[in-house]
Amino acid sequence: MNYIEELGARAKAAEATIRSMTTEEKNTALEAIAEALIANASLIITENEKDLVNAEKNGMTKAFIDRLTLTRERIEKISESVMEVVAHTDPIGEIMGGGQVRDGFNLVKKRVPLGVIGVIFESRPNVTVDAAVLCLKSGNVCVLRGGKDAINTNKCLSEIMRDALLLNALPADCVILVEDTSREVAAEMMKMNEYIDVLIPRGGAGLIRSVVESSTVPVIQTGEGNCHLYVDGTADIAMAVKIADNAKTQRPSVCNSIETLLVHKDAAEETLRALHELWNGLVTIYGDKKTAEIIPVERLATEEDFYTEFNDYIISVKVVKNIDEAIAHVNKYGTRHSECIITQNYEHARQFQQEVDAAAVYVNASTRFSDGNVFGLGAEIGISNQKLHARGPLGLRELTSYKYLIYGNGQIRT
Amino acid sequence: MNYIEELGARAKAAEATIRSMTTEEKNTALEAIAEALIANASLIITENEKDLVNAEKNGMTKAFIDRLTLTRERIEKISESVMEVVAHTDPIGEIMGGGQVRDGFNLVKKRVPLGVIGVIFESRPNVTVDAAVLCLKSGNVCVLRGGKDAINTNKCLSEIMRDALLLNALPADCVILVEDTSREVAAEMMKMNEYIDVLIPRGGAGLIRSVVESSTVPVIQTGEGNCHLYVDGTADIAMAVKIADNAKTQRPSVCNSIETLLVHKDAAEETLRALHELWNGLVTIYGDKKTAEIIPVERLATEEDFYTEFNDYIISVKVVKNIDEAIAHVNKYGTRHSECIITQNYEHARQFQQEVDAAAVYVNASTRFSDGNVFGLGAEIGISNQKLHARGPLGLRELTSYKYLIYGNGQIRT
Repeated sequence: MNYIEELGARAKAAEATIRSMTTEEKNTALEAIAEALIANASLIITENEKDLVNAEKNGMTKAFIDRLTLTRERIEKISESVMEVVAHTDPIGEIMGGGQVRDGFNLVKKRVPLGVIGVIFESRPNVTVDAAVLCLKSGNVCVLRGGKDAINTNKCLSEIMRDALLLNALPADCVILVEDTSREVAAEMMKMNEYIDVLIPRGGAGLIRSVVESSTVPVIQTGEGNCHLYVDGTADIAMAVKIADNAKTQRPSVCNSIETLLVHKDAAEETLRALHELWNGLVTIYGDKKTAEIIPVERLATEEDFYTEFNDYIISVKVVKNIDEAIAHVNKYGTRHSECIITQNYEHARQFQQEVDAAAVYVNASTRFSDGNVFGLGAEIGISNQKLHARGPLGLRELTSYKYLIYGNGQIRT
Repeated sequence: MNYIEELGARAKAAEATIRSMTTEEKNTALEAIAEALIANASLIITENEKDLVNAEKNGMTKAFIDRLTLTRERIEKISESVMEVVAHTDPIGEIMGGGQVRDGFNLVKKRVPLGVIGVIFESRPNVTVDAAVLCLKSGNVCVLRGGKDAINTNKCLSEIMRDALLLNALPADCVILVEDTSREVAAEMMKMNEYIDVLIPRGGAGLIRSVVESSTVPVIQTGEGNCHLYVDGTADIAMAVKIADNAKTQRPSVCNSIETLLVHKDAAEETLRALHELWNGLVTIYGDKKTAEIIPVERLATEEDFYTEFNDYIISVKVVKNIDEAIAHVNKYGTRHSECIITQNYEHARQFQQEVDAAAVYVNASTRFSDGNVFGLGAEIGISNQKLHARGPLGLRELTSYKYLIYGNGQIRT
């Protein structure tokens, strides 16, 4: 048995214990984790410093280093988010259906954990705790494979969590960190169907595609968000401008912000002129020919641009002749995440919601609302943009499966 | 665009139409399919004859040829099963949840089709119609890739279904047959993430493993059933013998029959002697040492035997010292399909159902009941033994996803 198989076997062994734990037992352990993070803040910051020094040496970008940095304030925030998970309803054990199938033969469909969840993510230490805590609350064991640039921080965080589990009668192996961050070990992890029930990649498009391509373990694809806002010919232009601005600039680095603006020709002049004036150079515009006839653009938008999730103050703009062209564009270039129409026309709203194939389809509201808390699911481990298993925000309930329990008294099939 | 990509693109185009169809429209088309199968029975039989002649030429087994054969009676049965799907509730459009998130911001979680479902299966023409009809009723397009030995039958059946769709205002491309049955084309199909939302392999363990290993499209793994019956020390032996016999011999070729009998040492003598007498050579027994001390065995059971789904009148037998050993054996060798304990002890029943990790866990009833009709899901496209998406029988509802619809009036995120 090699390194990663041994971790897998340990995870599978721990699974049997945690799946039978009561909500109270799990919450007690999670509270202990929240407290231990605060109590060990200085230690975490010291270990995090090592990663930060290496990251600077390796010439990582400012944004990268910012995501890697843990301060006392950020640790307190992480600890608070653990307590939010404690407060959320435990989905495990819910009776989802069933009935008396025949005389004395009773069927109960019961919600159970997925088992062992592998999480592959980049160098963001907050994800280490978030992912672990969501898995634990939903009765799952997690095998965490974070980015190599956060390895010292991750070792420290996982040891703190493992100690808190042990002190609260849960196996430390309910949280396992893959300390060997080589690509080879990650590749082996993606083939460990015997030990890992589900893999959740969390990060950029490249990471996610590589997991989807290499993994034989079932994957929940998350996070790619090439989202669109379509301003219909009948839109309230003031509302359209306000929502376009919010969906593009409130936090451009996240998956639920928009990358492309589609504008009906009747609304194009007014909408584009207003946005051009509002943004005043803040947002770089790649526009199609018709856009370029109305406002100055950085350059003409390419086919490639329409496929791109910029995650930045950049937007592609296209003027369309009708709603059908807008829907066809969204379904062709979109990543089935969050899509929006601004319209005053009832039938257009209905058609857009019906025909656009995405996890969340908005009428007259910003796509930035796509998240677990807004949707009532609590904290999320990611936003799924595949249709299998779960779509949209992945909260605690989305980290579960079910089993059928049959209570008989001697029935045979004839 | 090559052959299979072109089929994929046609499927994706048809998807937009079928996902908006009403239940009545879909049922009308399905009824037309049921009638057309009967009306074209002679044609189907003629085309099936060609496949049968080839199969005999190629020296296929009797069992293989039996599964490939269509008679008028079998066609009538297929047609009846289409009408059963017509009668079943349409899951599409169901409101699964939602609420008013904030002032004027309403969220609705609505059940929608998965999209395009690829089905890869062996030379069993009944699957061709079953799979197509379940996909259609649940608003999905299907791309069917059946075994090459049934190609003439499958072409005929798919043409009949496509004609019936066309005559009823649905695109013929809602049912697409992959006529090129080469391995290369199947391999390309497994990578068509752009056009296929989900792949369901249906067939033997080898087929399923090859799809799981090669596919980048999300897969629902079905059908591998290495199921166990554990006779507890406190079992009613007469019941244990009756259920063991039913679960092994009523239809040994199917996935929900048992492959291994585990017997508590206190129940071993009585149970094994009774089964040996009852079966009287009908079932070949591979037993462990303790079994061999009680009854004659064909040979000692090997490690390999315990991993094997015989699908035949063969059983592995092992005497265990307690329920913990039984549960550990099931969780190690089982395929998480259907597992059973025979016991009179309440706590053992509870422990077995809690600790055994399988889609269906039975107390005192035959594992042969694991199917969509018994479980109240209607006809099934297979039995999932993975935990992602759906577990156990895959009925109409298991062929769906959901989307979130958001109705706002200008909300932005702050």
